[in-house]
Amino acid sequence: MPTLVIANKNYSSWSLRPWLLMKVHRIAFEECRLSLDSEGFRARIGELSPSGRVPVLHHDDRVIWESLAICEYISDIWLDGRGWPSDAGLRGMARSAACEMHSGFQALRAQLPMNCARRPDGYRWDEAAQRDIARVLAIWNDLLARSGGPWLCGGFGIVDAMFAPVVIRFRGYGVDLDGDAREYVRHMLAMPEMREWIAAGVAEPERLEKYETLA
Amino acid sequence: MPTLVIANKNYSSWSLRPWLLMKVHRIAFEECRLSLDSEGFRARIGELSPSGRVPVLHHDDRVIWESLAICEYISDIWLDGRGWPSDAGLRGMARSAACEMHSGFQALRAQLPMNCARRPDGYRWDEAAQRDIARVLAIWNDLLARSGGPWLCGGFGIVDAMFAPVVIRFRGYGVDLDGDAREYVRHMLAMPEMREWIAAGVAEPERLEKYETLA
Repeated sequence: MPTLVIANKNYSSWSLRPWLLMKVHRIAFEECRLSLDSEGFRARIGELSPSGRVPVLHHDDRVIWESLAICEYISDIWLDGRGWPSDAGLRGMARSAACEMHSGFQALRAQLPMNCARRPDGYRWDEAAQRDIARVLAIWNDLLARSGGPWLCGGFGIVDAMFAPVVIRFRGYGVDLDGDAREYVRHMLAMPEMREWIAAGVAEPERLEKYETLA
Repeated sequence: MPTLVIANKNYSSWSLRPWLLMKVHRIAFEECRLSLDSEGFRARIGELSPSGRVPVLHHDDRVIWESLAICEYISDIWLDGRGWPSDAGLRGMARSAACEMHSGFQALRAQLPMNCARRPDGYRWDEAAQRDIARVLAIWNDLLARSGGPWLCGGFGIVDAMFAPVVIRFRGYGVDLDGDAREYVRHMLAMPEMREWIAAGVAEPERLEKYETLA
């Protein structure tokens, strides 16, 4: 059985992506959770992950690291490619959106870190983060209009897994939504698998100051 | 015929990736070059690229953006998947390495920006950038040992295209290489397609101060 090494569910946005994809598609796996700030993390991550980061998937004698690469591997090995849309044009757009999320949105990621336990308050972000938010909403509304929903490209896929942490960010900081994006966020937060992740994150005993300072 | 929109060859590391993959695999395309700092760039990029960034590929009525997503699309449409290794385990590792490059190495990217015209001098980088360099070399040496070379996973693929800008960075800043990585860099720089890109970059009339300040 594959083992997915993740970090704290409350904070580790990158861990959520392959975890959610495997859960939604009913792929059985062992979960190995390391706490980000513990001595145990530093002691164990070196032997588990070549990049020193989570998430990392161990399957047979293979070690696959990086959230997007793990999602591609899951689609490859267990989903016969169904992690992406079957239409080549929509697949290209889905990968474009997933890659833009994978490498970009630095202001959004820095100023609105994922924190499952967070509730909207008076905290506000700068114009760069607001531009990132507007771009995420534009991507979502464009894909939803093309595919007809309910997920970004029809059925739940890698592109949805890649944006799932942003849904938790938008919820926690009270980001204003527009168009179909509002319903998309509601739909994502109602998923049993997302509710399971968020509940587990909120229940974690560790609270890490560096992730909480914006709260 | 597809059109690949790129920016200055001297500086646009992300543009190099899909350009090189298409050139090596003899896929015919139109090249549309926009200068990064010109009024023309700001005026035209909005209609050409949904993210406002290069590279972006136009093919039939499809618009594919983001360097890695364009490479995946090229492999999908024109290479029957040969952009990645045929072995599922090696393919997973190749995607892991490509994704680590796609989202990471911030210190390396900030402190050693690509500049085809650059030659090594007294400029040095900090420990964070040196750790990035060591990690890139570890990835290369590991993949080359597994595949036997001459490219990272045997034949020239997306993972090589993703790291091609780093080869130009290492050359321009005189980074010390070790193991098989030294031969890999030599091999990459000897490719006719890389020589064509670098020569075109050096010949460009525009010199952009913000990219030259480290020189």
